[in-house]
This record gives sequence, structure tokens and C-alpha cells, in this order.
Amino acid sequence: MNIYEQNLPKTAANYAALSPVDFLLRAAEVYPDRLAVVHGKIRRTWLQTYQRAQQLAHALCALGVQKGDTVTAMLPNIPEMLECHFGVPVLGAVLNALNTRLDAASLTYMLNHGQAKVVIVDREFSKVMKEAILNANVKPIVIDVDDSEYDGAGECIGLYEYEALLAGQASAQQKNAPTESALQLSSTQAVSSSHTTQPASAAKASLSGASSLHQKDPITFQGDEWDAIALNYTSGTTGEPKGVVYHHRGAYMNAISNILEWDLPTHPVYLWTLPMFHCNGWCFPWAIAARAGVNVCLRRVTPEGVFGAIRDYGVTHYCGAPIVHSMLVNAPEALKQDGMSKLNGSRVKGMVAGAAPSATLIEAMDALGITLTHVYGLTEVYGPCTVCAPQQEWDTLPAAERAVYHARQGVRYHLQGGADVVNPETNEPVPRDGQTIGEIVLRGNICMKGYLGNPKATEAAFAGGWFHTGDLGVRYPDGYIKIKDRSKDVIISGGENISSIEIEDVLYKHPAIMAVAVVAKPHPKWGETPCAFIELKPGAQTSAEELIKHCKQHLAGFKVPGAIEFGELPKTSTGKIQKFELRARSGAVSAIDV
Amino acid sequence: MNIYEQNLPKTAANYAALSPVDFLLRAAEVYPDRLAVVHGKIRRTWLQTYQRAQQLAHALCALGVQKGDTVTAMLPNIPEMLECHFGVPVLGAVLNALNTRLDAASLTYMLNHGQAKVVIVDREFSKVMKEAILNANVKPIVIDVDDSEYDGAGECIGLYEYEALLAGQASAQQKNAPTESALQLSSTQAVSSSHTTQPASAAKASLSGASSLHQKDPITFQGDEWDAIALNYTSGTTGEPKGVVYHHRGAYMNAISNILEWDLPTHPVYLWTLPMFHCNGWCFPWAIAARAGVNVCLRRVTPEGVFGAIRDYGVTHYCGAPIVHSMLVNAPEALKQDGMSKLNGSRVKGMVAGAAPSATLIEAMDALGITLTHVYGLTEVYGPCTVCAPQQEWDTLPAAERAVYHARQGVRYHLQGGADVVNPETNEPVPRDGQTIGEIVLRGNICMKGYLGNPKATEAAFAGGWFHTGDLGVRYPDGYIKIKDRSKDVIISGGENISSIEIEDVLYKHPAIMAVAVVAKPHPKWGETPCAFIELKPGAQTSAEELIKHCKQHLAGFKVPGAIEFGELPKTSTGKIQKFELRARSGAVSAIDV
Repeated sequence: MNIYEQNLPKTAANYAALSPVDFLLRAAEVYPDRLAVVHGKIRRTWLQTYQRAQQLAHALCALGVQKGDTVTAMLPNIPEMLECHFGVPVLGAVLNALNTRLDAASLTYMLNHGQAKVVIVDREFSKVMKEAILNANVKPIVIDVDDSEYDGAGECIGLYEYEALLAGQASAQQKNAPTESALQLSSTQAVSSSHTTQPASAAKASLSGASSLHQKDPITFQGDEWDAIALNYTSGTTGEPKGVVYHHRGAYMNAISNILEWDLPTHPVYLWTLPMFHCNGWCFPWAIAARAGVNVCLRRVTPEGVFGAIRDYGVTHYCGAPIVHSMLVNAPEALKQDGMSKLNGSRVKGMVAGAAPSATLIEAMDALGITLTHVYGLTEVYGPCTVCAPQQEWDTLPAAERAVYHARQGVRYHLQGGADVVNPETNEPVPRDGQTIGEIVLRGNICMKGYLGNPKATEAAFAGGWFHTGDLGVRYPDGYIKIKDRSKDVIISGGENISSIEIEDVLYKHPAIMAVAVVAKPHPKWGETPCAFIELKPGAQTSAEELIKHCKQHLAGFKVPGAIEFGELPKTSTGKIQKFELRARSGAVSAIDV
Repeated sequence: MNIYEQNLPKTAANYAALSPVDFLLRAAEVYPDRLAVVHGKIRRTWLQTYQRAQQLAHALCALGVQKGDTVTAMLPNIPEMLECHFGVPVLGAVLNALNTRLDAASLTYMLNHGQAKVVIVDREFSKVMKEAILNANVKPIVIDVDDSEYDGAGECIGLYEYEALLAGQASAQQKNAPTESALQLSSTQAVSSSHTTQPASAAKASLSGASSLHQKDPITFQGDEWDAIALNYTSGTTGEPKGVVYHHRGAYMNAISNILEWDLPTHPVYLWTLPMFHCNGWCFPWAIAARAGVNVCLRRVTPEGVFGAIRDYGVTHYCGAPIVHSMLVNAPEALKQDGMSKLNGSRVKGMVAGAAPSATLIEAMDALGITLTHVYGLTEVYGPCTVCAPQQEWDTLPAAERAVYHARQGVRYHLQGGADVVNPETNEPVPRDGQTIGEIVLRGNICMKGYLGNPKATEAAFAGGWFHTGDLGVRYPDGYIKIKDRSKDVIISGGENISSIEIEDVLYKHPAIMAVAVVAKPHPKWGETPCAFIELKPGAQTSAEELIKHCKQHLAGFKVPGAIEFGELPKTSTGKIQKFELRARSGAVSAIDV
């Protein structure tokens, strides 16, 4: 032992577990009266948001939730979802936010696999969730969220109602209680109405640091930073969805790194266009708390909603897949002008990921007054963990050329350990020539804990000390990575690899095209040939012939699509185009493989 | 074990030690050609800075430096000092940056106590260092820094010269080698001129992540985040100086927190007014690397140097004790105008700590075009770890009133765990009434590893799970802390506690006063009475009678100084007024206690 290893242990004074739930406590301490949440007519401060998250934690405690228990949320981007990001993990419990567009069978699989102990469900999604629960082996306690800002269909299906629970009025909702045993609460789980139940072992009551926040017994995170904070299911385009487990340390690191990549200032006004169920909203529920910003909630993403929020609340930042940004660019001119007119020349910042944005889109957004920051990641790395960090010398390039630089996936996040492109066989880095294709690999503190209950998949994903993304890319001389394709999206025609993204980029340059996806189509001679699925802008017209001609101007002959189909593209709830469905349509795969 | 604790271990893919040396690697990877260092005629990019730090690491390796070894630096704010902050800890070795104003006896004590293995010394300080080494028990290897931008006195005293070492031309400087055995290098320590020596065990060569940086065998940090990164001696106003040990994790956290507190954008231009030997420049060598900013070096802090740098390099940020800011405010008008004129209205941001700035100073800086962020900390917490986070509603207050709010020490840093004021006897938080005085305590990841070789002092400092600062303060209803005094600076007169800072604040409002310090003076009747030491502005005139009258207008009778003395105030190299020396002068303590 060297002299620095003697008698210098970790203590309560000089070591604290890294957990992003602490960001909410600090926001409530330092900025208690600042606006934290806007949702329809609802306005809440950071103190109120903290207090509600604490009330949620106490209520879950009283329902018997302990460290390592799964609390499942089926919620849109509403304040309750934000509160879940703090009230659940502060207990050491694990938040499993589900994709609200999933079918009952998928949900049943996830409830069972994640061993859901509690389900918090918005009325809008109660029907499918009820079906899912009835078919599940697990018997979760169900808490309804009856959002006062929602007047659509859907009934309450649980024994508890969220607001009532928070208010400490946790009497069973007998009038709504369904008869199905799956949704019944056993008497031993009954909530103590006097709220005297002590917090679970992982979370001890503590007065320190919150004595002015008027909580009688604040709950603070008492676990280890390696403890699980969230469970997020991959979209499962092949096989069963995998349960990606996040740890507190990684969520903390990604939340801060988001701030650094974006130069996110204190008190941003953040619009929730990205679903919070998607990689925990790329960790922005925690990042915005760290910056004591405003969370502008959105139950449904529409051009009216987005431009209205920019106009009414002075939105400064938002995130989304290319389809979200594309929707804004292609919105009616009057709507765009109305939204952007009050900014007095200040720009909105958008973060884009989920698929490589076309150079055309980046350029159009720029003209609209929205600066795009292009990031890249996957569920396994907490959402984005590389960024196309802008370089000063790009500023003087013509817009179209500049956009080509910005369309790359870029470099590792400040707080990520590494991002590289390697030869999949040797695991050695490919040459930085912008040509040689390899697999994109990532490593560092912004990588998942692993796949729940699937050590084989975890080991394979982490082989050789890197997380293997399954995405193919190249590395440029400046170190920037560009994605070329998902491994399974590559089209192999006459023995040549064709990047579907390269063809899409060319097609996006055509003024009539709103969205495009290129997949492989079986071909008797060449094996495969590119097949382009096209969604046109409202009112726009073109023909397959014209588009083929356009492609021939910009692409080598063997890359020109052999088939073009028009129609609305199938998309996931996060706006990702579902290529697997298109592959089924093109006949590239049989339906059973999808 | 719950399901989230099964088969989800830390691996090389998903866990990396938090070390701020990684920030330099990323800056070199992402911004290789951006300006990193300005020093006189010298300009270096981030790639060059990274490569020099790597060369330093290789040279130290070759000299036998290993994990846990102490490398001592006696350097002003020059590029070599910056390089030491990366080249030393990347090896797992510990940087001990010494106060360049210390006397030989103090230096000898520190060399022995820290077991210095290598000393890197600037020619300006070689005389005192030579004396210190000759008297020390340890026999460090000495490396001279012969800064090409320095033309003052001082000779080379070591066997090696820094530039030559970095160039791999590490032949012993026979012509300068002194005859004293203390400075001789034993043959077993001789540097291999072929540089084939492998890195020490703590630092393994790795190609990953740096293959484009043209380093044949880049050294990356291979240790644990709890490993020591730096050793910093307290100023030791009572007893022997204590060796404060920093860990990699804490330095990483404080560097990032500096960015968050200051909304420090990408690519700031940072002026080195704060000594890097002082709490490692409050961790800004690492913070500026994380932001890929420009380090503008300054060997000596003068108004000409500071305003010249603002004018020539567009300085955006700097740090310093109040005396530094006060020097700027009181500089000749022409100098100020020349410096600030090219900013076109954009403001410079200054960070101030080391003593509570007077409301008057904050107000005057504001008028000059410099926005002060007020932070507070101690050597034990990596420099600052609380910030007077500004609140929007203060903006509408009259300047003088606003400055009173800003003069408080504030709230915990984003990434610090907690800051509170407690009753020293019960360890319970004091009421948040702005009145009840208690001890300021801190805790979290931005607290030292402990005192080197002094487990008793470490335990006492961390008693009850908090670091005890020895500073007295109050907490306001909004949670903000205000320092009232160092425990030992409180004046007890007729049984009443008097805050020396309160009296100083009143005196600072007098237009003739440049600097003031109030200490206790023995009094036959009251026990103690306040004694004010005053330094006047150049050309200003006043009298003791006038100042007493001024105090009577603003203070209770028993707080009015019983004695006033004029003259230059003794200050530490960081601009802190040395009250212990004034106490000796006032007769409050015998010289032996100082």
C-alpha cells in the first residue's frame, strides 16, 4: 500500500452514490418557487414537484414496494410520468416505462419478464393494459392516473387512483374496482391511511438537506450507484424484446452529459416531444431537474402543439426522431410563422437521433430557426451517447455542405468512455478513411448494466470490453463516426454491400418527399435490390420514373432502387420508421421472422 | 438478491473510473487543432498539449515514477503546470503543487511529509527550492523548467531540464549539476535515452481511443477513481500544514460542477489569475480541458496583464480572491477602458472566493462589465463547492441591495452532496433565520480523501458524516448560507460574539478604503475589542476618527472598532489577508501561537 492508500477510506462525509434523483432535491432546495411543470392548465413549481415525488415514494412504500421491485408505468408525457422518474428510484425500486403503443401480448410479456409489482396506467391506455394484466402471471397492484387534462375515452381499472394516493387518501376505489382477481389488492398490501409506514430498507428517512421543504420524513436514495434505476425494453425487431437495465450512475452521467453536449443553460424551457418511455426520455427528466428548467408536457405531438408551445411558453429546447423535426419543417407556413414569430430572432435548439437525419432536413431546420444537434445512441446506452460536435470551420461552408458534416453521428459524449468503429472479426479499429465499414462500438459509464435475466445476451453484447451496437459505420480522418446502416438493413446486391441510408439521403433531396425508407427486396439475379418506400408531402406529386431518374443522377447504377412504392410509412411511437415491416412487404423476409 | 442484482456485473464495457485526465484525451480527439494554451509568444493546440502531457508521463515513467508516488511542482501559471495536471495523474502518481511564495523551511517540511520523489521547479523559484531540498530527508529527482518566456533571475538546479526530457533527449545536465548529493540522481534512476521503459503498473499502454493522435503508446489512467490525484497543503495558520489528499472522482466532479455553476460554454477563454497551486486552480485545469477552452497563462497577476489579456485574447472567464477583483476595479481608468473596450458590450465572468467579497466590490465589478459569481470553499473541498446561485427576482433590486444577496456563500454545488450550518455541539441544523450562528459543514463527492498520514485529523474533520469547515455562518430562510467568520476570527467582547466580517463590510463602504481586516485586540475590561487594519486606495486620505464615525452610523456601539491602524495588509499568495499576522500585531495572540 502506498501512502495514499493508508487510512483514507470512503466515509459518509466524502462519498455519496451518484443518483440523478438528487437533482430534484437540489432544484427544490435552490429554486423552490420556479416553474417546473406546465401541463394544460396545470402549473407546478420545483418544490411542488419534489413534494409530489416524495408523496409518490411514500405511497409506494406503503404499498410494500421495496428496493429492486419493478414499478411499471404506462403513461404519456404528463407530470405523473415525470414524478415517477424520481418517486420510484428514490426508493431503490426500478421504473419500467412502457411504450404506450404496444399491443396487449407484448405488454403481458414485459409485465411477466420484469416481474411488475405495481402498474401505474393512464386512463387512455387502460383497456390494453387491463387485457395485458389479465393474461399475465404476475399480479401487480394497479394505480390509475386520471389526468384532469384528458377528456378522451378509457376507464379506471385499478384499486387506487394516483391523485388520491398522493393526497394520502388512499381508500380503495371500490366503485371502480374490477372483479378480475388480477387487479385485486390483497389485504396485506392495503395502504395505511395514516401513512405511518416506514420507508423500505433501501431508503431511510432523513431530515438533512430538506428540512425547509416541509416534508415530515423525506426519503433520500440510500442505495449503491450500481443499483438499477430503470428497465427499458428494446423494440425487439428480432426475437423477444430484451430488458435493458440502467444503473443510477449511468443515468446521472448521461443526464449531465446531455447538459454538456448541448451547452444547456440554467432554466431552459424544455418541450416534451420525445416520449419519456423511450430510454427514459434520453435521461432528460433528470437533466432538466439538474438545470431547474421548465418541463412543458405534451400528451400528443402535433405541429399545432409544438409551435403553440414555442409561442406560448418560449420553448428553448426539445428532442425527437427525424420524423418529429420533419413534421415541423413541413407544417403549414402560417403555423410556423405564428410559432417562431415571438422569439425575436433567438433560436430553438432541437436534438435529433433515432435515425440519421438527412442533410436536407438539417438544412431546412436551420432555415426555420431551429438549430439541430445531432446525437446517436441506442436503448442500451441510455439514448444518445455520441454527438456530432460542431466545429468552427464548418460555419463558413455552404449550408448544404455544412449539413453533410452535421449529418454524421460524431464523437463520444463528454462523459462516455469511448466510441469507435471496429472490424467485427478482429475487434480492431478500422482505418479512419471514411470508407472502411465496421461495427460501431461504445464503452464507458453510459452503458447499461446489462439485459435482465439474460446473461448470455449481456456477455455477447459486451464482448471484448465494448458494447456492440449492431450498427455499421465508418470513421473519418477527424475521428467522427458515420452510421452506414444497421447490420440487418444492409442490402447485398450482386455481392456488393449497399447502404440503405445512402439511398435515402439522395431521395430526401427530392422536394416532393416527406419520408423515405429503403430496404432489400429479393431479386432473382442479384440476390437483393434496393426497394424504396416513399411518403409524399401533402399535395406533392411525383412518379417512380422521376425518382429513379433523380437517383441515377446521384448514385452508382447498382444502388438505384429496383422498385419504388408510395404510401404512408409504418412508424414506431418514437417516429422511427419500422423497416422490418417494410421488409415483410417487400418480401425480403417472411412474416414469421419479423 | 433481487433480479437486478443477478448477472449484471461491472465490466470494461460499462464501467470506467471517473478521472479528469480523460477530459484532455477527449479535447485532443475532438478538437485537436483548437487553441489550448497561450503563454507569451507560445501557442499550443489541444493535440499538442495532450502530446506534451503524454511525453511528460513517459519521461516520469522512465525516471521510475509509479502509482502512489508524489511528484512535486513548484511552478507559476505556465503551460508546464497545466501539463503536470494530466501527465502526473495519468500514471496514478500524485501531483503536489506547492505555493511558490513559501519559505524554504515550509517547503522542506512538505517535501518530507509528502515523500516527494520528483520535484519540477521553475527557475524563478530554484533558489528557495534548492535550499529546501538540501535540508530535506527525501532525495527527489529534480527537473528544471527553463521557461523561454521568463528572463528573470534563477539558475537550473536539477539533473534534467523539462523541455529536453519531453523531447526524449534526457541526457543529464552535467554542466548545471550541483555537487550536493541531495540533487544527485542515482544510477539506477537514470533515464533510458531510448525511452523503451514500459509504463508503471498503474498505467498500461493502450491504443484505444487515441490511435489518431499519433502517440506510439498512449498512457491512459488505469487506476481506481478513489486513487489519489493531488496533494495540497493547507496554509497552516495554526500548527503544521496538513496534506489534503484529492481523489480522481472528486476532481472529476468538481471540474464538471464548475461548468454547471457557471454555465461555462464550450470553448471559453480562461485567464489564469488564480494560482494553479491553489487547490489545483479550483480544478479549472480539468474543467477547461473538458470544455476545450483556451488557457491564457499569466506568470504574474497585474492589472496591465489582466486587462491586456481581456483586450488581446477576448478573455471570457477568470477566477480569483477578492483582492484580485479589487485590484481590477481600482486600476487606472485608461487601463480599464482599454481592456474592456473591445468586448462590444459582452461581459466578462469572474468567479470570486477565498474571502467574502464586500457588497461594494460586487457592485463596482458589475459597473465595470464583469459579472461576479460568488463561490465558497476550502482546500479540503477542492476549492469552491458552494455557489451563490443567482435568483431571477434579485435582478429587479437596486444594485446595492442585490449585491447583499450576492455576497452570501450560497448553496451546495450541483454535484456536491450537501452544505449546511449546524450547532457545533449537537450537530443539528440551525434554524433558517439568518441569525443563529453555527458551523458550516459540507459533504458529498467533492470532499477530500482525507489528510495524508493524519488519521486523527481526518476523523475529526469528518465527524458525524460531515466535513467540518471551522467557519461560522448562518442560514437564511431561502437556504442560502452566509459566512460570519472563521471560528478563530470571532471577536468576543463583553461576552458578545462580534463578526469581524460584519465590521469589514461596513468599512468597505467607505470610499477611501482599499482593503480592511478586523481582528480581536485584548481589552482589560471587555476581554476583546475589534481592531481594524486599513489599507487605503492610492492617493486616498481619511482618519481614524472619520472611520470610527462612519462605523457608528452603521454598527451597534459594542461592534465599533476600539483601534484602527493604517498600512499595507499582509496577504497570502492567493490574496487572502493573513489575519493571524494581524492578530500577532494586535497582541491578540503571542507570536508563538501563530
